[in-house]
Amino acid sequence: MRIARIAHPTGMSFAVLEGEGPGATAAEIEGHPFAQIKLTGQRWALDDVRLLAPILPSKVVCVGRNYADHAAELGNEVPKEPLIFLKPSTSVIGPGEAIRLPAVSDQVEHEAELAVVIGLHGARGLDREAAKSAIYGYTCANDVTARDLQKQDVQFTRAKGFDSFCPLGPWIETDAEVADAEVRCEVNGEVRQLGTTKDMVFDPATLVAYVSQIMTLIPGDVVLTGTPAGVGPLQAGETVSISVAGLGTLTNKVIASE
Amino acid sequence: MRIARIAHPTGMSFAVLEGEGPGATAAEIEGHPFAQIKLTGQRWALDDVRLLAPILPSKVVCVGRNYADHAAELGNEVPKEPLIFLKPSTSVIGPGEAIRLPAVSDQVEHEAELAVVIGLHGARGLDREAAKSAIYGYTCANDVTARDLQKQDVQFTRAKGFDSFCPLGPWIETDAEVADAEVRCEVNGEVRQLGTTKDMVFDPATLVAYVSQIMTLIPGDVVLTGTPAGVGPLQAGETVSISVAGLGTLTNKVIASE
Repeated sequence: MRIARIAHPTGMSFAVLEGEGPGATAAEIEGHPFAQIKLTGQRWALDDVRLLAPILPSKVVCVGRNYADHAAELGNEVPKEPLIFLKPSTSVIGPGEAIRLPAVSDQVEHEAELAVVIGLHGARGLDREAAKSAIYGYTCANDVTARDLQKQDVQFTRAKGFDSFCPLGPWIETDAEVADAEVRCEVNGEVRQLGTTKDMVFDPATLVAYVSQIMTLIPGDVVLTGTPAGVGPLQAGETVSISVAGLGTLTNKVIASE
Repeated sequence: MRIARIAHPTGMSFAVLEGEGPGATAAEIEGHPFAQIKLTGQRWALDDVRLLAPILPSKVVCVGRNYADHAAELGNEVPKEPLIFLKPSTSVIGPGEAIRLPAVSDQVEHEAELAVVIGLHGARGLDREAAKSAIYGYTCANDVTARDLQKQDVQFTRAKGFDSFCPLGPWIETDAEVADAEVRCEVNGEVRQLGTTKDMVFDPATLVAYVSQIMTLIPGDVVLTGTPAGVGPLQAGETVSISVAGLGTLTNKVIASE
């Protein structure tokens, strides 16, 4: 099932997306989608609504160097344990919103990632098996990174924490099979990253279990699972698209900060 | 004015704390305290309520190496720009709650800090002067840190992100003068850290301005301003108290994780 957050003619709601192409619709969900889904009966043509970030997480936990080829391209070893860091919730934007390049960086880069969304019961102190059940669904993410600041600061917080540096979307797919899913990034239609989730060092359930031993994940929290090789620069005026097979495509334009 | 969050006989509220000693009371605030404060008229003896974390921030932005003596004790240089990192909102606890030592660390340490609470209009892209007005008030914080994991991981996220690793309180003081305020940490009544905010490398307004150029701070967000020298270990069974002159004392017991 595809769960979206939408702006519609009379407000904002979670919605179930139904159908493909010109007949596609968004069926409004009453309240939150995590427990039993109840539809209000209100339904719009998909063309008449705007997709928002499919979730507003209380936190975004990210994992570095989780694909060997990407670790190597930045001159790093693959870590023995997941290397985690946080992006602030204020960095989240939705499909179609602009990634704003801060004036203080000369090298803002894309990182295509599979994103995990945590479900109704959250995740605290879970083992890998229990972590599987804590996953509500998956979406695409772009772990936008000011590479020059990342190298300069050592701590990743500034480089990865600017407003607009965490595009999420286009929706949450609750039935995806992501053990061997293509992860792709295109800039202006040109392929820049092309990997598969089967090359992850730590798989999503392992990552959720690991994080849950440190900090409680609450419903809607997001875990980004790392990026494959091919990261590279974004310039103002470009359009960047992140696709994970089965999860749709997250597209954002890139603009200079005001 | 002292603003607290309290658990009272019929629920939880923000409250204005009035008076000292046996006659002290907590006057219930209607809704949030950030704009005009409106009292409900309900009032309890302070002894009949329990102080909670005075705010539940969407994010806690921390600053490392902001006192020269502390940077030196860990063998670090004072940074040219603030070194920022994030603690997850799930790490926040209130006065009297337990700091839980994770089994995975053998060296959990206290860090006494002055905490800034952001007010009604948030902070985005501010200069230092505007940042002063964005500060709602101040409270005490303990930036609890698993020092062994911090050294091992390089990224601070795990070492500083465990549940219970961000005690805040006991209340928000909205009229404090913190340009030269004593910052103290006691463990079982023995002084371990004793510094003054005048030795900060970057003062609170400078820090808020800096962070606001990166990520939008929303009302209630918290900025921790770094710790003076004297950080050291916490053991299960101990009691740790953080005091900042004029802001009261934040006391927490330390227990082993279940």
